[in-house]
Amino acid sequence: MAGALVDVKPTPILKEELDIVIPTIRNLDFLEMWRPFFEPYHLIIVQDGDPSRTIKVPDGFDYELYNRNDINRILGPKASCISFKDSACRCFGYLVSKKKYIFTIDDDCFVAKDPSGKEINALEQHIKNLLNPSTPLFFNTLYDPYREGADFVRGYPFSLREGVPTAVSHGLWLNIPDYDAPTQLAKPLERNTRFVDAVLTIPKGTLFPMCGMNLAFNRELIGPAMYFGLMGDGQPIGRYDDMWAGWCMKVICDHLGYGVKTGLPYIWHSKASNPFVNLKKEYNGIFWQEELIPFFQSAVLTKECTTVQQCYIELSKLVKAKLGKIDPYFLKLADAMVTWVEAWDELNGKVDVDQQ
Amino acid sequence: MAGALVDVKPTPILKEELDIVIPTIRNLDFLEMWRPFFEPYHLIIVQDGDPSRTIKVPDGFDYELYNRNDINRILGPKASCISFKDSACRCFGYLVSKKKYIFTIDDDCFVAKDPSGKEINALEQHIKNLLNPSTPLFFNTLYDPYREGADFVRGYPFSLREGVPTAVSHGLWLNIPDYDAPTQLAKPLERNTRFVDAVLTIPKGTLFPMCGMNLAFNRELIGPAMYFGLMGDGQPIGRYDDMWAGWCMKVICDHLGYGVKTGLPYIWHSKASNPFVNLKKEYNGIFWQEELIPFFQSAVLTKECTTVQQCYIELSKLVKAKLGKIDPYFLKLADAMVTWVEAWDELNGKVDVDQQ
Repeated sequence: MAGALVDVKPTPILKEELDIVIPTIRNLDFLEMWRPFFEPYHLIIVQDGDPSRTIKVPDGFDYELYNRNDINRILGPKASCISFKDSACRCFGYLVSKKKYIFTIDDDCFVAKDPSGKEINALEQHIKNLLNPSTPLFFNTLYDPYREGADFVRGYPFSLREGVPTAVSHGLWLNIPDYDAPTQLAKPLERNTRFVDAVLTIPKGTLFPMCGMNLAFNRELIGPAMYFGLMGDGQPIGRYDDMWAGWCMKVICDHLGYGVKTGLPYIWHSKASNPFVNLKKEYNGIFWQEELIPFFQSAVLTKECTTVQQCYIELSKLVKAKLGKIDPYFLKLADAMVTWVEAWDELNGKVDVDQQ
Repeated sequence: MAGALVDVKPTPILKEELDIVIPTIRNLDFLEMWRPFFEPYHLIIVQDGDPSRTIKVPDGFDYELYNRNDINRILGPKASCISFKDSACRCFGYLVSKKKYIFTIDDDCFVAKDPSGKEINALEQHIKNLLNPSTPLFFNTLYDPYREGADFVRGYPFSLREGVPTAVSHGLWLNIPDYDAPTQLAKPLERNTRFVDAVLTIPKGTLFPMCGMNLAFNRELIGPAMYFGLMGDGQPIGRYDDMWAGWCMKVICDHLGYGVKTGLPYIWHSKASNPFVNLKKEYNGIFWQEELIPFFQSAVLTKECTTVQQCYIELSKLVKAKLGKIDPYFLKLADAMVTWVEAWDELNGKVDVDQQ
């Protein structure tokens, strides 16, 4: 019932309502391949590393570009919450966007093909995922019930078939899979060739590893929770930026009743990062995540938290109280979480003024 | 790491350790198509309806067949827990099997083809699913990490990569999807044509609609929880047998730390049952499931329950205490759950003698 109605209509492209955020340190030649799909949209490019370098953007794209000097100028002392020399800097783009939706993609990701050989419009699939509801309260064995040719199966409670608003759409990667350094080292030749034609809702109460390579979200619903943490330059950890955001975001979505989808669309991830460099970045995270997962699995937000900002501040307090003992880094991170929300509210205006 | 090691070995066929259970009211011509895959195995045929009818089984298959007279003779007064004129009678086959694994399939299910046109050996895939661990504690975005070409992605805690034993493998259906009567009525022409090349673990704490059409399980791990309830003749409900078993089983697997997988393999489901007849059978269930789901979602078993039997008895008490007010049917069902476990122990010997 649901599927047919949704899919026979063309997917709205939301040209005026979506920004594409790209963190980079190099010329954006990769955009050439995306031109047919991305050209109608506005790009927010977050230049990492040396701000004196010039990043070339192919002609015809509409963009704004921020380097470290811009970030420092715009945020002042609050710029301390934005990572440097790590793709975590991308969340600055979420902060300065004025749009309802964000799609973020890495500059080593190209257009993938489906099994029929057709080029996949990743952004269109993300938009479909975000505009259709999620079903976190009960698992549907035919996956996304709102897709064409699918529905809720026998035994699915009718009261749950409206679903809940979708906050996040997590896309996947063909070719180079998103492995950690130990797995990269152990399986240097592994490539992901399996095209799984599914979109599904991550159930309520379940955590997952959110990868920032190919990710879209509803900024109005969940933006202030999409903070990518303190990583890279001056920090004892890297490559956990998207994971951190994913765990915080999922706890808050579960609390507020929003959905998170994973699966389609695929992009083509072109090159594996260096596993030795990655191991150095990930080293602490490999130990710490063993304590972070139980922490997030048991994190409970109080009923009084009714906005993303309130949830995020409460989570930062839990981080300080419960994770500080792992390493002083988490005390600093908890403070940065607060700074991030302050910066968000400063640039975006408070949405919960009546509750202050 | 995990995947390659598992998949390069041929899948053991477990000829001496697996029974195929088929509930039926007709000649089993459908077995001809399954001959290359099923012939090595022992079949347990549970004949529903008129016991004086003769069910023809194609030559060459090794089988035992039970009709209603056999069930009454073997179970005596306890036969009251086995449904009549409903495919729920299939669970009698689970009771009399002496094997470690069960595969159960409906007689209107045929061999499906994968997208390359190759015939799918559904049983082999179920065996793979059951012999590989499950990952209910954290979601892996590349689905089953133990499959060839897949692994755990970045951010997956290393301490959880061993997984847990798999108790149940839930397979899917191409062609006629497993819809309820209202959906069948609304979408009479819908066919499932989407082959989703994935196996995944249903996360801990998440319920799903388990369909009995194409299902395998580890009888040693979870057998006593696979009771298909009181349905059909003399009962106010039908077509909720597998759902009931699935909800009970999932709560118990979550409690005992076992995994439940869904996805591959597909079978070809040939014909839709009559939606008007189905509506009559499902009618009460459509209302009741709205209260059953919250009941199972919040059901907590005590630490003292360390065997499936203990869990199941405790669950029957919760059913009596909390669902009896919906309809007296649930009081009768709770009693039948106890009778089922008594019958199981009588035929299979108590596994938890030291705890009695």
